[in-house]
Amino acid sequence: MAIKNGKEYTDRINRQQINIWYQGKTIKRPLSSHPAFNGLIKTQAEMYDMQHQKKIMEQMTFQSGTDGERYGLSFLAPRSKEDLVRRRIMMELWAEKHHGFLGRSPDYMNTTLMSLYTAAHLLQEYNPEYEDNLKKYYEYCRSQDITLSHAFIQPFASRLSELVDEVDDSITAKVIDRKENGIVVNGAFMMATQAATCDEILVFPSPLPSMLEPDNPYAFAFAVPNDLEGMTFICRESYSGSSHYDHPLSSRFEEMDAMVIFDHVFIPRNRIFYLGNEEIGERLFSEGNFHSHAGHQVLTRYIAKTEFLLGLISKLSDEQNIALEAVTMERISRILTMLENLKSLRLASEIMAEPDSKGYYVPAKKPLIAATMQYSSFYQEMLGMLQDISSSSLVMLPSETDFESDAGDFIRLYLKGQDTSACDRISLFRLTWELGVGPFGGRQKQFERFFFGNTRTLSSRMYNVYSLDKYKAMIDEFLHRGETH
Amino acid sequence: MAIKNGKEYTDRINRQQINIWYQGKTIKRPLSSHPAFNGLIKTQAEMYDMQHQKKIMEQMTFQSGTDGERYGLSFLAPRSKEDLVRRRIMMELWAEKHHGFLGRSPDYMNTTLMSLYTAAHLLQEYNPEYEDNLKKYYEYCRSQDITLSHAFIQPFASRLSELVDEVDDSITAKVIDRKENGIVVNGAFMMATQAATCDEILVFPSPLPSMLEPDNPYAFAFAVPNDLEGMTFICRESYSGSSHYDHPLSSRFEEMDAMVIFDHVFIPRNRIFYLGNEEIGERLFSEGNFHSHAGHQVLTRYIAKTEFLLGLISKLSDEQNIALEAVTMERISRILTMLENLKSLRLASEIMAEPDSKGYYVPAKKPLIAATMQYSSFYQEMLGMLQDISSSSLVMLPSETDFESDAGDFIRLYLKGQDTSACDRISLFRLTWELGVGPFGGRQKQFERFFFGNTRTLSSRMYNVYSLDKYKAMIDEFLHRGETH
Amino acid sequence: MAIKNGKEYTDRINRQQINIWYQGKTIKRPLSSHPAFNGLIKTQAEMYDMQHQKKIMEQMTFQSGTDGERYGLSFLAPRSKEDLVRRRIMMELWAEKHHGFLGRSPDYMNTTLMSLYTAAHLLQEYNPEYEDNLKKYYEYCRSQDITLSHAFIQPFASRLSELVDEVDDSITAKVIDRKENGIVVNGAFMMATQAATCDEILVFPSPLPSMLEPDNPYAFAFAVPNDLEGMTFICRESYSGSSHYDHPLSSRFEEMDAMVIFDHVFIPRNRIFYLGNEEIGERLFSEGNFHSHAGHQVLTRYIAKTEFLLGLISKLSDEQNIALEAVTMERISRILTMLENLKSLRLASEIMAEPDSKGYYVPAKKPLIAATMQYSSFYQEMLGMLQDISSSSLVMLPSETDFESDAGDFIRLYLKGQDTSACDRISLFRLTWELGVGPFGGRQKQFERFFFGNTRTLSSRMYNVYSLDKYKAMIDEFLHRGETH
Amino acid sequence: MAIKNGKEYTDRINRQQINIWYQGKTIKRPLSSHPAFNGLIKTQAEMYDMQHQKKIMEQMTFQSGTDGERYGLSFLAPRSKEDLVRRRIMMELWAEKHHGFLGRSPDYMNTTLMSLYTAAHLLQEYNPEYEDNLKKYYEYCRSQDITLSHAFIQPFASRLSELVDEVDDSITAKVIDRKENGIVVNGAFMMATQAATCDEILVFPSPLPSMLEPDNPYAFAFAVPNDLEGMTFICRESYSGSSHYDHPLSSRFEEMDAMVIFDHVFIPRNRIFYLGNEEIGERLFSEGNFHSHAGHQVLTRYIAKTEFLLGLISKLSDEQNIALEAVTMERISRILTMLENLKSLRLASEIMAEPDSKGYYVPAKKPLIAATMQYSSFYQEMLGMLQDISSSSLVMLPSETDFESDAGDFIRLYLKGQDTSACDRISLFRLTWELGVGPFGGRQKQFERFFFGNTRTLSSRMYNVYSLDKYKAMIDEFLHRGETH
Repeated sequence: MAIKNGKEYTDRINRQQINIWYQGKTIKRPLSSHPAFNGLIKTQAEMYDMQHQKKIMEQMTFQSGTDGERYGLSFLAPRSKEDLVRRRIMMELWAEKHHGFLGRSPDYMNTTLMSLYTAAHLLQEYNPEYEDNLKKYYEYCRSQDITLSHAFIQPFASRLSELVDEVDDSITAKVIDRKENGIVVNGAFMMATQAATCDEILVFPSPLPSMLEPDNPYAFAFAVPNDLEGMTFICRESYSGSSHYDHPLSSRFEEMDAMVIFDHVFIPRNRIFYLGNEEIGERLFSEGNFHSHAGHQVLTRYIAKTEFLLGLISKLSDEQNIALEAVTMERISRILTMLENLKSLRLASEIMAEPDSKGYYVPAKKPLIAATMQYSSFYQEMLGMLQDISSSSLVMLPSETDFESDAGDFIRLYLKGQDTSACDRISLFRLTWELGVGPFGGRQKQFERFFFGNTRTLSSRMYNVYSLDKYKAMIDEFLHRGETH
Repeated sequence: MAIKNGKEYTDRINRQQINIWYQGKTIKRPLSSHPAFNGLIKTQAEMYDMQHQKKIMEQMTFQSGTDGERYGLSFLAPRSKEDLVRRRIMMELWAEKHHGFLGRSPDYMNTTLMSLYTAAHLLQEYNPEYEDNLKKYYEYCRSQDITLSHAFIQPFASRLSELVDEVDDSITAKVIDRKENGIVVNGAFMMATQAATCDEILVFPSPLPSMLEPDNPYAFAFAVPNDLEGMTFICRESYSGSSHYDHPLSSRFEEMDAMVIFDHVFIPRNRIFYLGNEEIGERLFSEGNFHSHAGHQVLTRYIAKTEFLLGLISKLSDEQNIALEAVTMERISRILTMLENLKSLRLASEIMAEPDSKGYYVPAKKPLIAATMQYSSFYQEMLGMLQDISSSSLVMLPSETDFESDAGDFIRLYLKGQDTSACDRISLFRLTWELGVGPFGGRQKQFERFFFGNTRTLSSRMYNVYSLDKYKAMIDEFLHRGETH
Repeated sequence: MAIKNGKEYTDRINRQQINIWYQGKTIKRPLSSHPAFNGLIKTQAEMYDMQHQKKIMEQMTFQSGTDGERYGLSFLAPRSKEDLVRRRIMMELWAEKHHGFLGRSPDYMNTTLMSLYTAAHLLQEYNPEYEDNLKKYYEYCRSQDITLSHAFIQPFASRLSELVDEVDDSITAKVIDRKENGIVVNGAFMMATQAATCDEILVFPSPLPSMLEPDNPYAFAFAVPNDLEGMTFICRESYSGSSHYDHPLSSRFEEMDAMVIFDHVFIPRNRIFYLGNEEIGERLFSEGNFHSHAGHQVLTRYIAKTEFLLGLISKLSDEQNIALEAVTMERISRILTMLENLKSLRLASEIMAEPDSKGYYVPAKKPLIAATMQYSSFYQEMLGMLQDISSSSLVMLPSETDFESDAGDFIRLYLKGQDTSACDRISLFRLTWELGVGPFGGRQKQFERFFFGNTRTLSSRMYNVYSLDKYKAMIDEFLHRGETH
Repeated sequence: MAIKNGKEYTDRINRQQINIWYQGKTIKRPLSSHPAFNGLIKTQAEMYDMQHQKKIMEQMTFQSGTDGERYGLSFLAPRSKEDLVRRRIMMELWAEKHHGFLGRSPDYMNTTLMSLYTAAHLLQEYNPEYEDNLKKYYEYCRSQDITLSHAFIQPFASRLSELVDEVDDSITAKVIDRKENGIVVNGAFMMATQAATCDEILVFPSPLPSMLEPDNPYAFAFAVPNDLEGMTFICRESYSGSSHYDHPLSSRFEEMDAMVIFDHVFIPRNRIFYLGNEEIGERLFSEGNFHSHAGHQVLTRYIAKTEFLLGLISKLSDEQNIALEAVTMERISRILTMLENLKSLRLASEIMAEPDSKGYYVPAKKPLIAATMQYSSFYQEMLGMLQDISSSSLVMLPSETDFESDAGDFIRLYLKGQDTSACDRISLFRLTWELGVGPFGGRQKQFERFFFGNTRTLSSRMYNVYSLDKYKAMIDEFLHRGETH
């Protein structure tokens, strides 16, 4: 079957022979048994299993009209508003599993690839081979249910160096050799989330300008398996705990980030999506409506996360015996307001969706950008609530082993809540701790703060999608109802 | 015709013999020639004329299936989602005229009356006469195109007094006599917006509890013409300017607020909608879905106002030569984000509308409350932008007469903009002054801050429309995926 | 005597024959009987009378060691920390009279002139005559107790034009002729606060660069009486009410702003403080420590205004019957926190004062800039509190004439407070209205927002007064306690 | 000598036989070699060594006039403003060592004890023995340079239970037996910071009311060594890293929090400071001016921390190549403004200090409360800056071992800054990570948010220290300058 299950997912990850470094050592054992990866792999395996659950298979997958095969629904290139709704229901189902904590849930990258695919035709203008490569790669991923990561952030120092010396000394990733059957690439990408727990990686740097067109060595995109000769993954330290009780989030959802280094890696010709012209990269993203398609997935994730925080903050208010205070009502209704915004923006993006030039339906972009513009501050506001409600209860938290020790009786006696056992009370604050104090939550906050760019980038994206002329004209018209001088 | 035009509206207002006080004197001359009222009356007359404009008559009015008569569309009790869309288009057309500055645009009160009408059937439980009165009054207003105001805020001191002494000394409005053909009412209402520029007034105090049920003298609702014996209107000072150039907003949109005093006023029996039981008032509002129907109108007004401010802030940024600065892009895209929120919330309220028990379609309440919860701070944020962009240009503003004086040449020379004449530049800052410095804008800000209640009231409204159980259950379920102790 | 009293102040203002335009007409009658000016003139006359009150004369004035004459203390060039404290006490006494609402209280301009005087010696490098002119002018103002305004903001369009054409077409104020006994100046200044209620005006444009040094025609400073040939004042509309009851603030404190136009005005040689070199202007301000001396006065004004708002917000909380609510306690203690900040910053500026190169004591600059950096947002936060507490009570306010009319009984009955008469209750909201809704308060808000420049200007002033090196070095040192690679 | 050095401090901690649990196990080995404690112990040992450094011994210690002995200066009960300045300089020296990250730096508890000591005389009213005990204990701590922690937060459930059943079932800490030579205490305290790295613990619960006066079993205070029979310490998980490079803050400053349980612990009579009457506890704190004396120390800590963040944010801005952008200037000058506030408030607290009834000098309380009211939001604002500046650079951080591994060359190449080595660049972000993402910083944020209570507690403290009458009277006086009705 084209849709894989959890075991297949796990086996493939374990089978890969990737060159991966963690805390100064290479990892030899299967990733699924390594404490920095096993929680996430287990969660993601369960997500792939959902594709095979009878009750929801229809919602998680689709049957191709062409070959009758059943594929993951996140690969579906939507042909109608109904398709968009189907896609959203599938994304909600997965988000109910990870509650919005997975930034690289498989549907994110599948959607990304699908969006590029819908614009593949434009590659023909440059080189028909590129179009063919991209389409075939999409079909390959869909039929093998490939788990993808992607890499695009370049080293900080590269942003300053590439103008100084175009070819030789720059550390910007570049094509250093072109051969008959492929190219040789050298360079590094800063932060590929989940890189190690995927089958392949899509490399798509933000195109940099060059004076060497049409042979700009910095302009390229390709996708390759993780275990090619010359590829190295270097991980940050893990934020994952091993006990579900102590670390309920990180023990399940910790997505490792890695630097990915290409040291003279040979990229086969059929995996190259474009070369030499930075304009193409921009067009693929904009004409493939990446920000709309991906934005639809991201907003679904935001909603799931907001609902999770709504539940948590409600529970905490009960636990702290302040459920009926005015301040609690104000907090909760503030979250409900955020939630209504987000849901309405998603609905609007679907209702106002329009077909692109090839008939693929694209969720309306404006409401989706509006959601992204706000979520970072919504999220921080909710974190502030968590911290206010929990106060000193976030600091002195015993662990699962403390409960089991000879000192456990003290804990059970002195840490109980008004109507809750110490075990239940502490489990709630443990969860809150992970969001508001611990490193998993710290990374999540930073991640949401910059998901689709900083304020300036987002503002400019919003600004450019609008025309202000009619609003200015309205003011002119209004003022000219009056006298003139 | 059932739809009136501007002249009919004006004539009726002028014909009324109301007892109205302004600055310590009673007003004798026709209101349409009084500087405190004429701008608003002219604007509203133009709005009524729109009902007769060929191009938009279909959108502004509807033909009754019952009697074939054509009525104002804001009276339409919606029977489908399409009806809600028709209602919204009508409200947009009027809002394009007043740009959201009229809080008591006729559609607001017409919608209020319509919402009560949809719940008229519940009055039968108490007294079939009430039901009949309310339905007939609705039909009367619809067929005569009556312009309504309403009164409901009681004196501050009344809120404290009514428990002390239920009947005698309290200053709370109350029924002091019941007669065969009507009742006698005594009391005052604090702030009836546009009371003097309407035909009639709907009096509907927030029901206060009493121990004297079912004869609670504080529980009642009725509607009467403005010129009954014993009614007195006392106006605040006017914020209206007379020159469109100097005061482009207040010269058109200044809605006078008035205290309305009932000094032993006899209310005819057929104009009474309920009596004696405070429960009825609450039910009329909640089962008539007042906050949903009115919220739909209010949100349409918010959107118009936001678009006006978007235009103004764009124009000002051009005028101040900062259109291309990053801070401008951030401001504008912040407004665009607000606008997308508001539009999506309105769309969601329509898409998710549902019929009430009698088959009237009700816009979904949650998105509408969400809009109200936010608009006050959105509005203030935009005012802050106006003030930041304008800086000292908001202070030294010459007037129309200065332009025309012998000093006019200096003004034309020294106050010109980079690409604009002094006349155009100053007209922009005049408009901004009215919003950000002058009393018209000051009242608007206060008005928006408390339109549907203060933060506590709004929060409680939002909180109560939701059930949090499923969100709490989600957290429980999540935590119980882990171990237990 | 060198210190004038209120009558002398008023008489001089009335005697001046200035060319002043208001609402398109020139004003002929004495300003002290004109409704746009009389309230302010009366207030300021009372302030000058304070100099002669036995009880505080010692605190309001000082006796010169040189000539034994008694002068206004705001002219005192401080020679010790004790002098700074004396200056502050005098400023507090005046501020208790105007509660911080006068931005151009006489001590502001007297302090400005004093600060320039302390740097007069640097003019000798350029032209000994300039030094002499400035010193003599300072002595003249001190001995005549001259009331000064100042002008420095140039037309908006001038900022863009002066580079295009240096001499001919620019509308920037400039020297257009140099004669043996003086110069001829042409140009306009945008916003001279209180210009019409002063004796003389100090003209000190921000120096613009020019390629024509040392004959930069845009670089100059001078002071002249208000009634020279060729000078024109154009006023904005007045925000002043005439009833103390209805408009308690504007009827006393409305400071008119005016454009001041110099149309080929001849400036006598002995009134010129420098010419032709923009560097001099900058040095006079920085070496005269203008921002420190003036900042000390401004901070004293901020404190008086904050205390007034503290009183008002406390009274309003009582009036609205919410004095004991948690939200009130939070509001009040927030204001107390602001007040402690401001007072401590002022204290620090005095305690850490240091002498300049000539032995004049200069209040420490850093705390004073810190105060200015914050006050705009402190002020707005307090306005927000006013609006929240007052809610709809700010809208429906009767006027003094309403109380006196036949409708007065209704007002007295229905507008009373819980423990206050309607007259007292409304007087409180009238005051609040002026701050939070009316145009006097609107201008004050805009004025405070930009008093010493916008955020960018203030930030840069703060940034440049500090050296960050030692703080960066601390981090380096901290990090190098660790290992190296 | 009465002042101990680092070795003595460490040896004493190691010698103690305390019953301490960490992650479900008791700790047997010396704490100074345990990874959860060794960093802090080393830092604190260095701080004690500072007392013996020739260059600063005079500033860190004082010579007693009574016995000629040299004591730690934080024990000094100040007799003059100069003493307060000496105390502050000592606190600054220690804070330069820990940069404000130690909430329980020894001077904090020494100051606490000193403040109680200054009010010891009031105990005589109740029982002369108590006064004697407190004075002797102060002298003992001073002469032995005892390192103290304190415990006062009771279990959450206790706050609800004590009213239900006064003596039997409540879990509130209480005296359960009174004997000739002491008392027996049972109960738990939630969060004693640094409890395990101190010699003794001061137990001083917030006094709860009881109907059993004068034998209220919940009212008591005492101090005991950490290793009495029946005492148990349960630690939270450690946030400490072992590498100074990877975790520059937590490897030095991680202060472990512990629950402290008293299971039928016998407290010797001479260590009891009061019993049975909750009024005494309140008086000791208020008449001992705890919030003033401790507030002076805390504010000094805030200033050190703010300076550290100023340095870090300046360095980061350089590193990210944005030092010259307007946004950077605004951020830095915002921090400078906070810093000026804090420093001026401290200065004011010293300048306006006054003697208590016994002649001990007390720093002025108002400026100190003002500092506490603001610091939580200042701190969060700075954290927000860290996160904004660092953006994705906070996520992908290699560790010290990665640098040393075979992958180190890649890291050195690709992670270098514009002008900095990868090692230096990453060390800066590692530090930022600890503050903005990791658990050490998460706890610090929560700690600062609630240091002296939540917003409501702080507001009430501020509110009660002021009298508003004179400010209200000012408004009355101002309004009565006008007419009356």
